[in-house]
Amino acid sequence: MIKESIEQSFTVTYRYQVHFTEDLFAASNPVLARFFASHASDTVAKALVVVDDGVATHHPELLPQVRAYFAALSGILLVDDLIVVNGGEYAKNDHAVVDKIIAAVDQYGIDRHSYIICIGGGAVLDAVGYASAIAHRGIRHIRIPTTVLSQNDSGIGVKNGINYLGKKNFIGTFSPPFAVFNDFSFLQTLSDRAWRSGISEAVKVALIKDAVFFEWIAAHADALYHRDADAMAYLIYRCAELHLQHIAGADPFEFGSSRPLDFGHWSAHKLEQLSGFNVMHGEAVAIGIALDSMYSHLRGYLSYADAQRVIHLLQALGLPISHTLLHTTASDHPLLIGLEEFREHLGGRLTIMLLQGIGTGVEVHHMDTDHVLAAAAVLQNDFEIQL
Amino acid sequence: MIKESIEQSFTVTYRYQVHFTEDLFAASNPVLARFFASHASDTVAKALVVVDDGVATHHPELLPQVRAYFAALSGILLVDDLIVVNGGEYAKNDHAVVDKIIAAVDQYGIDRHSYIICIGGGAVLDAVGYASAIAHRGIRHIRIPTTVLSQNDSGIGVKNGINYLGKKNFIGTFSPPFAVFNDFSFLQTLSDRAWRSGISEAVKVALIKDAVFFEWIAAHADALYHRDADAMAYLIYRCAELHLQHIAGADPFEFGSSRPLDFGHWSAHKLEQLSGFNVMHGEAVAIGIALDSMYSHLRGYLSYADAQRVIHLLQALGLPISHTLLHTTASDHPLLIGLEEFREHLGGRLTIMLLQGIGTGVEVHHMDTDHVLAAAAVLQNDFEIQL
Ligand SMILES: NC(=O)c1ccc[n+]([C@@H]2O[C@H](COP(=O)([O-])OP(=O)(O)OC[C@H]3O[C@@H](n4cnc5c(N)ncnc54)[C@H](O)[C@@H]3O)[C@@H](O)[C@H]2O)c1
Ligand SMILES: NC(=O)c1ccc[n+]([C@@H]2O[C@H](COP(=O)([O-])OP(=O)(O)OC[C@H]3O[C@@H](n4cnc5c(N)ncnc54)[C@H](O)[C@@H]3O)[C@@H](O)[C@H]2O)c1
Ligand SMILES: [Zn+2]
Ligand SMILES: [Zn+2]
Repeated sequence: MIKESIEQSFTVTYRYQVHFTEDLFAASNPVLARFFASHASDTVAKALVVVDDGVATHHPELLPQVRAYFAALSGILLVDDLIVVNGGEYAKNDHAVVDKIIAAVDQYGIDRHSYIICIGGGAVLDAVGYASAIAHRGIRHIRIPTTVLSQNDSGIGVKNGINYLGKKNFIGTFSPPFAVFNDFSFLQTLSDRAWRSGISEAVKVALIKDAVFFEWIAAHADALYHRDADAMAYLIYRCAELHLQHIAGADPFEFGSSRPLDFGHWSAHKLEQLSGFNVMHGEAVAIGIALDSMYSHLRGYLSYADAQRVIHLLQALGLPISHTLLHTTASDHPLLIGLEEFREHLGGRLTIMLLQGIGTGVEVHHMDTDHVLAAAAVLQNDFEIQL
Repeated sequence: MIKESIEQSFTVTYRYQVHFTEDLFAASNPVLARFFASHASDTVAKALVVVDDGVATHHPELLPQVRAYFAALSGILLVDDLIVVNGGEYAKNDHAVVDKIIAAVDQYGIDRHSYIICIGGGAVLDAVGYASAIAHRGIRHIRIPTTVLSQNDSGIGVKNGINYLGKKNFIGTFSPPFAVFNDFSFLQTLSDRAWRSGISEAVKVALIKDAVFFEWIAAHADALYHRDADAMAYLIYRCAELHLQHIAGADPFEFGSSRPLDFGHWSAHKLEQLSGFNVMHGEAVAIGIALDSMYSHLRGYLSYADAQRVIHLLQALGLPISHTLLHTTASDHPLLIGLEEFREHLGGRLTIMLLQGIGTGVEVHHMDTDHVLAAAAVLQNDFEIQL
């Protein structure tokens, strides 16, 4: 009557739209209103809005605009407080932002069919996304990314997280957003560093997936460097599209050990942390891309000319390719520690994406530590350093 | 070149086995060894074992047995500490257990391909499952439930959570286990209350899904009351099977408002909390089933004879059907507050499962408060109260 075991198996389908627009909260912009209309039900849903203080400061018109926009909608009730939180890695470095959001969920009776809408950079989105994922076991979370990096990468994907016990993204979840609204007009107020740093994720995805996109970036490096809005809009669109395709393709929640989108990232995580997050994520990724491209060359996967092209493109985009924190000959070199930490974070078999051509990645399961250090030395000595 | 939006869509498949066995950690029991062998890889996986102190106390042989069992396995490394945590609702009432597990994940370098194995009741499983779900965005979590309730319901499902800000399950996630091992031999040391209380989840699922199972329970009420091991094994097996089928059937992660398995639960959550968790979950569910069955009758869905059968079965199983905390005529009656809190927790449209026959549920979107209080009064006055 009793079998030895029951096999449970089911699939969950996730679906969300990533919108591209400008001036999302202008009264004349129908995108958000249409979205809420299409999700109308016979009860009034609540909306809790959380704003990155870097955005609020540079866009003093934003908060009143948000209030006015929601006042004109029916079927959706903006709660009284607009919550402004500290932007940047700060938001992720402890539980404070997460606790604040969960307290607001309690205070305002935000339920699983209400919305938590976050306007901000990747760090604030990660912290607020995490809070939204765990409160009531998941509240509808709308992301409105305001940086290049969050519009083309972190904000459109399925991960959130905060740093904990001094470790980057030590806790978090895989939780797709309910919808994403990429509003290009936010980007105008970014610092030059933040503007450029997000471009490295586009270089990354182009290098492992799309040579045509790489050529496009190379042809528009100057425009991107000089903050051409149209070039940036296309860069973000195409990068987002490639990311989304990848996520939908295989293993969206990373149950396996393969993480192609982490190309250039194993060393980046370590450098960010070592620098106390003074090196931005995208800057660290640029350095990581340079390192893994040079390593790919030294190990015979990539021609020197191609490695050089990658490095010169990063430089043309105003991105760094090395960092003094890596200029050490200590035997416990930070790169070797970082490699070990990445192995641990990943779990299972070490799997690192390298390049075997521009637009073509190749996975390896072993990194030769001598060649890692040699690649770092080449970058330090043979190229002009930017940071 | 840029479209207005990109539609992202993908499915994630979850698969896990629920095993039924006895003496899981006896050297001669191959079930767990076979499981690890079938998941062997070319790296050694770590295992962190967490044990409910109620289990450890009643099974002094368990910890040495666990060590010996793992010592005999290859490809899997038990970390030095076996972590024993406070059992019961205590484990869920704050962050302490969760923090302890996450600290151990850090200390022992537990990665996403390692295992966190939890042996315990539903409360400890919920807390440890939650920690496993958020550390590194999810570590393989193996559940070894040790109570009736956790073997037939909570331990085999997809939810975890802890209480927060005084609210039951206020934070948590939907995270299927990696595997479940139901070991019937643990049940022998349960208190009579814990033994009986888990039976109410079987009555619940029988009432909404399977009249044949209801009749089986009714026919075996006496054996179950007197702790017949074979009767209990079948009760658990069939209840688990019905739960698993339901979860796999539709909306496993409860994106909609319908929650059939929450039959009898809206009032139960409130009563548990009001009693400071002195009323066990299963006891509160028994009271909730009695209440919603009587309400179903008063609203004309269920015959009096059927409502009476339900109540008499609960009583024959030694389960309570009412509680003094509900014997009040206050205008802010706890049941009315509980109904409102359930509406909020659920979100969207209120959806409550009632009965229109034994084995057949019916969903309603409105609860008549006068009839709710009338149903409570009938249970208080017309039946002999057990608690
Ligand atoms: N979840 C993921 O999949 C994922 C992927 C990649 C990166 N990330 C995370 O994203 C974070 C980095 O995000 P980021 O690069 O967007 O930087 P950020 O969020 O750290 O923001 C940088 C600074 O810009 C400010 N800012 C944001 N928008 C602005 C605007 N429109 N105008 C002016 N100032 C503005 C912020 O207040 C902050 O001070 C890191 O924590 C990284 O780990 C997450
Ligand atoms: N996640 C879900 O889907 C879900 C579903 C239903 C209930 N729950 C939760 O489950 C919890 C209740 O779980 P429970 O009924 O298993 O009780 P419990 O976990 O509270 O345990 C009750 C007591 O029994 C002890 N104990 C456990 N196993 C024992 C054994 N074999 N021998 C002797 N003592 C033992 C514990 O130490 C504790 O003191 C509640 O927190 C409830 O919210 C969760
Ligand atoms: Zn990145
Ligand atoms: Zn229950």
